[in-house]
Order: sequence, then structure tokens, then C-alpha cells
Amino acid sequence: MMSAPLMAEARGATPAARDAFAAVQLELAGAPAGLALRRPFDPAAHSLDPSFRLTRFSDLKGRGCKVPQEVLSRLLEGLSADEAGANDQDHHLFHVPMNRLGKWIGMDASITPLGAGGLSLVQTTDFIYPLVDDPYMMGKIACANVLSDLYALGVTECDNMLMLLAVSTKMTERERDVVTPLIMRGFKDSAMEAGTTVSGGQTVVNPWCTIGGVATTVAQPNEYIIPDNAVVGDVLVLTKPLGTQVAVNAHQWLDIPERWNRIKLVVSEEDVRKAYQRSMDSMARLNRVAARLMHKYNAHGATDVTGFGLLGHAQTLAKHQKNEVSFVIHNLPVISKMAAVAKACGNMFQLLQGHSAETSGGLLICLPREQAAAYCKDIEKQEGYQAWIIGIVEKGMRTARIIDKPRVIEVPAKEKEGELW
Amino acid sequence: MMSAPLMAEARGATPAARDAFAAVQLELAGAPAGLALRRPFDPAAHSLDPSFRLTRFSDLKGRGCKVPQEVLSRLLEGLSADEAGANDQDHHLFHVPMNRLGKWIGMDASITPLGAGGLSLVQTTDFIYPLVDDPYMMGKIACANVLSDLYALGVTECDNMLMLLAVSTKMTERERDVVTPLIMRGFKDSAMEAGTTVSGGQTVVNPWCTIGGVATTVAQPNEYIIPDNAVVGDVLVLTKPLGTQVAVNAHQWLDIPERWNRIKLVVSEEDVRKAYQRSMDSMARLNRVAARLMHKYNAHGATDVTGFGLLGHAQTLAKHQKNEVSFVIHNLPVISKMAAVAKACGNMFQLLQGHSAETSGGLLICLPREQAAAYCKDIEKQEGYQAWIIGIVEKGMRTARIIDKPRVIEVPAKEKEGELW
Repeated sequence: MMSAPLMAEARGATPAARDAFAAVQLELAGAPAGLALRRPFDPAAHSLDPSFRLTRFSDLKGRGCKVPQEVLSRLLEGLSADEAGANDQDHHLFHVPMNRLGKWIGMDASITPLGAGGLSLVQTTDFIYPLVDDPYMMGKIACANVLSDLYALGVTECDNMLMLLAVSTKMTERERDVVTPLIMRGFKDSAMEAGTTVSGGQTVVNPWCTIGGVATTVAQPNEYIIPDNAVVGDVLVLTKPLGTQVAVNAHQWLDIPERWNRIKLVVSEEDVRKAYQRSMDSMARLNRVAARLMHKYNAHGATDVTGFGLLGHAQTLAKHQKNEVSFVIHNLPVISKMAAVAKACGNMFQLLQGHSAETSGGLLICLPREQAAAYCKDIEKQEGYQAWIIGIVEKGMRTARIIDKPRVIEVPAKEKEGELW
Repeated sequence: MMSAPLMAEARGATPAARDAFAAVQLELAGAPAGLALRRPFDPAAHSLDPSFRLTRFSDLKGRGCKVPQEVLSRLLEGLSADEAGANDQDHHLFHVPMNRLGKWIGMDASITPLGAGGLSLVQTTDFIYPLVDDPYMMGKIACANVLSDLYALGVTECDNMLMLLAVSTKMTERERDVVTPLIMRGFKDSAMEAGTTVSGGQTVVNPWCTIGGVATTVAQPNEYIIPDNAVVGDVLVLTKPLGTQVAVNAHQWLDIPERWNRIKLVVSEEDVRKAYQRSMDSMARLNRVAARLMHKYNAHGATDVTGFGLLGHAQTLAKHQKNEVSFVIHNLPVISKMAAVAKACGNMFQLLQGHSAETSGGLLICLPREQAAAYCKDIEKQEGYQAWIIGIVEKGMRTARIIDKPRVIEVPAKEKEGELW
């Protein structure tokens, strides 16, 4: 039965939009408690061609959409030099030369003091290209991905979100009418789950479909954790497995025989479908509990793992430490079978080298050694998902590395999900 | 001579980036006081092909990039219905059914109460495709365009900005290295002019080049003006001339003989170059003084004129009024000769019908009749730019219209500019 609000939505909408809402309702049927019971997106149920794939409306995925880190640093170089004087606050906070354009090459979100009263504006923006075919899930992932930048600073409350959506010029009108409301609803539901709302944004057309937003909060100093306080003896915790980029690619290759042939010796179709599902679930999961527990267990700083891969983000975090420390990573938790797939693809992903892009990845957190195990236990108790101790903080020159032969931890799709998908 | 900060910028940059900075410096030479003395962008001075045109890196300009208003309303329809309950604050403010996604179909910026203390988060986002060929000016225009949404609410101080930049996949590496820092610098200079800073953002690659950002401020209730208070007897003031879309198109047609032939009977090449210059100048101008004077002269509400044209935005503003009022527009100030060009193009622009898109257009302000003339005089005194009384507020059902034969006011390029360009 349709709920009253959804009935109201359907009234006055175009037939396509009505169908879309009906299909969303169907997909959500009987699953008020969450994600795992949702039916997967079926293009045909929306009167779209069964071959419709949202992921075809962009030529890039994950890291591909970002300007490479070294190019960006070079381009931004010029913009910081003349602001050194105006920039004392950041210098004070970071103890290292800090680009005024903090977000790009430094922190995950910007922190702007609002003058008297000790309040600061904490905000971030991000957008991504479609990397899963389910528009509703894509909306959820995009929202979780934006919020993750706040969570990396230990911020748990978001005051407001804006949504940034570009609809592909290559979609038919019907495809647009089906896909757009589903993406928006996914985004909005994720915001609601995070206890915030979407108050505005922009919708434009563009050759590639892009989905993103802005997350903003006004915070007291005790509500965020400046990620510069790692000390020798800390350990590194990661709250989501790696391998989302590998999994979404492998899933696309199920439709492309010549690509599939390259990996079919190391993985079954069922393995790929499970890994894809696990990835979607993981990318749509908020890092909010992870952020809340950072306060409880006295975290010394964190970042979220996204487009530049585990090592890229670890290096950026290391670079901004006050103390002379370095990060050494020993363990790589990877979505089951995806390490084998990555290896079978040669140098393409560089997963075990720490360079494979993640979308809406986990938090990488520096925790006091004696607190880390309790942190992992607590997050598993609260959310039912594991977190892993993956490395240590030692004396060093603010760099990060992965040891020669890291231990790969195979992270299975959860049994509960396995049964459903 | 290069200033010390710019020297610092050049060190360590690639040769292309170094050249770009040198060229920026050249273009800014001797003009610390402002825009009018800046030399125009010359691709060859940056070792780019003389035929390089930034505006070719998008197929759309102005309104073209927005999803049409009616389509958007339909797509968004579904998202508001189930939030009526959560939405009392907005209802209280607006006295009309207000979509929670305020920005898209209602106000120019969203206002989110921050709980105790009376503070609200006021924020907006916007991005546009290149519509002028000078990357530095394009950056300035994009920034002014984002800030304009805050200014429309009478907000004069912006606490923080984020920049959103998509570099075209179709640019060569050299083009990218030249264009990107110039756009960023233009954006940043405009932010500085507005008394704010750019603390972060996102840079991605995309088929089309897009430039935009986010503007955020934390404000007391007396620092913004909810645009719902027009009363019968008010007059409507517009602070920038119309016709920017016509001018930037006409300017592109100088390179396209078959298009140029359609308008060359009504306009000279020099007229087009002057109108283009006037447009750039106008689009890069901040609406900040216009916003400040709204408080001094007791404005009853305002909006900024952008992608949906004068009438589109007037209608949206009318729709959200508390009182039963309607707007009637009698006068259309248009950049010199652009009304004639628009007429020669048939129905293409619909400039005199109020539908021609503007970018970073003026504020359309409801002012008490007895204050309007003083407002216009004051803004001209402070900025050297005219504002115009263009219509009246009468009793009605919250609609807006332009009279049958509106008076077109030809707005010349300023003499000062005329000499220089």
C-alpha cells in the first residue's frame, strides 16, 4: 500500500514520474528498517530498456573524475603564495605550510572561524559520477560521500545540505524523468538518516551525469577534531573495507565478454555480484557512528578514504601532522575476492599499492593504542560492521607507506545480504 | 615589475603556468584599482592558438544549462509533499506552500535556523558554463553570480566560499594549465572584493567546462530580508541592464559569418564589442552595494535576475508574497543595441518578453515608492552605475507581467570603457 505522502507525490506528476514513484515504493516495500531488504533497481519495471545502465552516462568513475593530485597541487601552488599573511589562523592550526584552499590538498573540510563566540563554519563539497546502476542507491552514496568529509573531522551533526545534480544530455526524456527523482530521493533519504535536510541546490544538464552536494555545519571547537595530533605509538584504524572501485568495474565487465575473460579464472559471477552489493552497501553507509566514536576514544585525527586511495589520503594526513611521525600500514581489508581481481588486472587498479580509488570509503583514524581495540569493538556492536587496525604511527618525516607484503584481510559479503541478493 | 607574491607563484611552476602568471601580471599591469584598465585575454600571449575560445568548451550558455523551470518543478514535486510537517518554519516565513528545496523553485538562497541564539545559516550554490572567452573574467563572473543569491536576500557579508571547477576533458594540457589558474584567480579576486575568502572546493574533469561555487554566511535575523513583503504601491527597481545573453551570443557570431549576416543590418561590429564589454563588466560587478542599500531604503524583498530571465524571476518573487499583489513591468533597460539584435533573431531570445537568460544579473527589488528614487540615486553615486525603476506593485494574485509595449531604455557602454576597449 502506498503511504499517504507517496500518494500525494504521485498526484499531478507525469505518468513516467508516477511510475517511478510507484516503482520506488515497490522497491522499498516492506523494508522500513533499512537498505538490505530493498529490491534492486530494474530498468524494465520503470518501462526503460532492460539494457539501461546509469553508469554509462559518464566516461569516468572514482578517481578518474578528479584532476590528478600532483597536477592540482601545481595548479593551486600559485594561489596560496600571496596569502601567507592572511592565513595565520591556518598556520597556527597546522604548524606546516597550509594552502588556504585547504580542502583540495589538505583537510577534508574547511573550518572558518566566525569571529566572537568560538563558533566555526565547517563545510565541504564533493560530487561524483555514477558508479552503480541503481539511481536510488547512487543518490544515497553521493550523499554519504559528501557527509563523510565532515565525519572525518569528528563532526557528527550537519546543519544543512545542498544537492548538486547534473542530468546527462544523452538521456531520453523518459530516462531523465525516471532517474532524477530516484537519485534525489536516495540523496534525501541519506540526509534524513544523517539527521539533516537538503534545503536547496542546483540542477543542470551536462554530457555526464554528476551527483554531489555541499554539507555545512556551525560547530563549537569541541565538536570537531583537527587531524594533526598523531603521536608515536598510535595505531591506524580503518572503518570500511577497500576495493569498491574494483568491485564496480568487475560488475560492469559482466556485460563485456572481453573484459570478463580477463578475470573469470579468479572470480565467479556470483562472487562479483556479492562484492558489488557489498560495495553499494558500504558506500551508502554513513561514517557518522565512526565519527561519534572518535570523540569517545580520543582520536588524534582522521581522514576519509576516497579518490586518491588509501595511501594517497594517508600521505596527506601524515603531511599535516604537528609531530614528526609517519604512518606504516601492514593490513589491507579488502572486499572478498577483489584483491585477486585487482591482481589479475595487472597494474590497472594498484589496489595493494594503496592507490585504488574508493568512493565514500571508510575513515582512517589515528587512535591511542590502548583505545583502538575498544573502538573497533564498539563500532561493530553499534552497526554490525567490522573495523580493522591496519597500521601504526612511528617516528618519521610525515610520510606514509604500505609494507612490502601487506596482509590482505578478505572481507566477506555479510551472510544476511548474501541470502538476499 | 612582478610583485613579490607573484614571483613566488612563478617559482617551481611549469613553464606554461609561469607564462600564465606572467601574462596575468601583464594583463593586470598598472591597474591596481580595478577592472576597467585590464587588458583583454589574448590566447597568443599565453602561447595558445589565437583561435582558442573558452566558450567552445560547452555546448550551452546561460539558461541553456538549467533544467527548464517547469520540468524541474515537476521533478521536485514529489520531494516536498512528505515534508510538509517538518517544514513549519518555512511555512511560517512564507505564508504560502513552500517547497523544502527552497532554492530551486523559491528563494535564491536557503535559510536554516541554527537553533538557539537566533542565528541562521544562509547559503547558496550555483555554477555556469563559460560564456566569455577571458578565463580571468569568467572566474570573476562565476563568483559574482554565486554571491548574488546572498545579496538578493540583503545579506552583505559572506563568511566562506567554496569553488567548484570542472576542467574540460577536451582541453589540451597546455590549455588547461593556462586557463585553470586564471579562472581560479578571477574567482578568488572577486571573493576578495566581496570581503570573503575561498576556503576549499572541488576540481574535476568533465566534457564541458563549468565554474561555480558555494557561498555561506551565518546571519542574525536583521541581516537578511525575507523576500515576501511587497505591498500595493511599491515600485520595482532593477540594478543592472538586461541583454547579457544576447551580447555574448552576438559576440560569438563575429566569428561565424552565417550568423553574423542575420544581425549585421542592425548592429556594427564595434557596437557588439562594446556591448560584450559592457556585459562582462556588468556580470563581474557584485550586487553587494545594491544589497546594502536595500536595508537603508527599507526594501520589501528582492531576487536576482539570472537563468530564467527577468519575467521568470519576477514571477517566482510574486508567487512567494504574503500579500495579494502582482508585479507589472513597464520599462526594460537593455544594453545598447541588444534589443535590436534580439528582434532581428526572431523568437530566439525573447528578450522583450522577459525570458532572455541573464548571468549574474541585477537585483529586482520591491521598494516603497517614496524611497525608490533615492535608492537609485545612492547606488549611482556609490558605484557609478545606474539603476532603474521598471515597474509597480498592484493588487493581484501573485503573478508578474510585462506590459504590451514596454519602453526599452538603451543603456550605453560607459564612455570610460568605450575609450579603453
